[in-house]
Amino acid sequence: MSPVKVFGRAISTNVSRVLVCLEEVGADYELVTVDFLAGEQNSPEHVERNPFGKIPALQDGDLVLFESRAIAKYILRKYKSSEVDLLRESDIREAALVDVWTEVEAHQYYPALSPIVFECIIFPIMRGVPTNQQVVHESLEKLKKVLETYEARLSGSRYLAGDFLSFADLNHFPFTFYFMATPHASLFDAYPHVKAWWEGLMSRPSIKKISANMPTKF
Amino acid sequence: MSPVKVFGRAISTNVSRVLVCLEEVGADYELVTVDFLAGEQNSPEHVERNPFGKIPALQDGDLVLFESRAIAKYILRKYKSSEVDLLRESDIREAALVDVWTEVEAHQYYPALSPIVFECIIFPIMRGVPTNQQVVHESLEKLKKVLETYEARLSGSRYLAGDFLSFADLNHFPFTFYFMATPHASLFDAYPHVKAWWEGLMSRPSIKKISANMPTKF
Repeated sequence: MSPVKVFGRAISTNVSRVLVCLEEVGADYELVTVDFLAGEQNSPEHVERNPFGKIPALQDGDLVLFESRAIAKYILRKYKSSEVDLLRESDIREAALVDVWTEVEAHQYYPALSPIVFECIIFPIMRGVPTNQQVVHESLEKLKKVLETYEARLSGSRYLAGDFLSFADLNHFPFTFYFMATPHASLFDAYPHVKAWWEGLMSRPSIKKISANMPTKF
Repeated sequence: MSPVKVFGRAISTNVSRVLVCLEEVGADYELVTVDFLAGEQNSPEHVERNPFGKIPALQDGDLVLFESRAIAKYILRKYKSSEVDLLRESDIREAALVDVWTEVEAHQYYPALSPIVFECIIFPIMRGVPTNQQVVHESLEKLKKVLETYEARLSGSRYLAGDFLSFADLNHFPFTFYFMATPHASLFDAYPHVKAWWEGLMSRPSIKKISANMPTKF
């Protein structure tokens, strides 16, 4: 079986979301560089893979997929084993809780945390734009409320969907990793269960390996 | 088996996303009004259901779920039958394509289309704020590009994930329904396959029934 191909660069949060899942399931894969910093995602070859011109894309034989969350779920289903089952789709209630906290990441956590990453790291480095401190301030206030709810949740269960690691947890990795490189990382100190959960994620071999290719200084 | 309870109001796009799925699978359900226009989603009873204070929430016996996409998937799994299988999770490739186009709705279609709905309907009615035509103009330009890709996709298959109706299609209903009540509805005329797909969705009994409770004038 030839390895699946991922198109993109690990530095991209959407690409690293997929790579961590491949590492967790122990799949054989090849990362094919599509350098979005050089605009290569708009090349005809890549638009053939993803008509919206975004990374990552996945090729598995004649199947080509895009959208990182969809790719990640495909990988977690394809390589599911009795040891590694991160979607829990054989149990309708567990699967629902994985979905709930996956959606919470997308619709509550990400909108609060990501502007801080954009303002403190991505915009200054990639666009030469100074940090808008007003946006950072407002986002920190939003994030505190989100983290309060996470703290309550993680006081009652080891991981977000329950006492088992799932895709919902892993989904938090890429942007939280960059957040921890901003001047606001110490915010997490006020939420001990959240901090322990995050440190647990960071100690996973999959995340150590992928984050080694996610530079936070240039 | 007592009916599942949905907390919210059909006028909310996130609630109607769930209700259409319940109608499609023919489930017995009860809609319990939580009036977000009156701030009832922040009541202690509702925050007990969803710690983020959002609608909808779902109660099925002792299971309480929130986040509309997670609720919808739970319903589609629970009531799946040989006639109605809108996630296609028994076929890993079909499931992946359902996921791809579900994510496309969230990350490409919604960000282009929803600002037009907010500016033309939601903000003027709910906040008394006049339409920002610059936002509308920019969003229409983005939406045209998205609809071009949809037109190409729907020229090759009857529905987004393939020649079968799926959650990916249904997910487009709530905001597109309100978009069709804006002065920009005729934009879809330039994309005949998209328009036929939309008219096909609108002719479904589930969507006819739920949209009857989604007023576009007040």
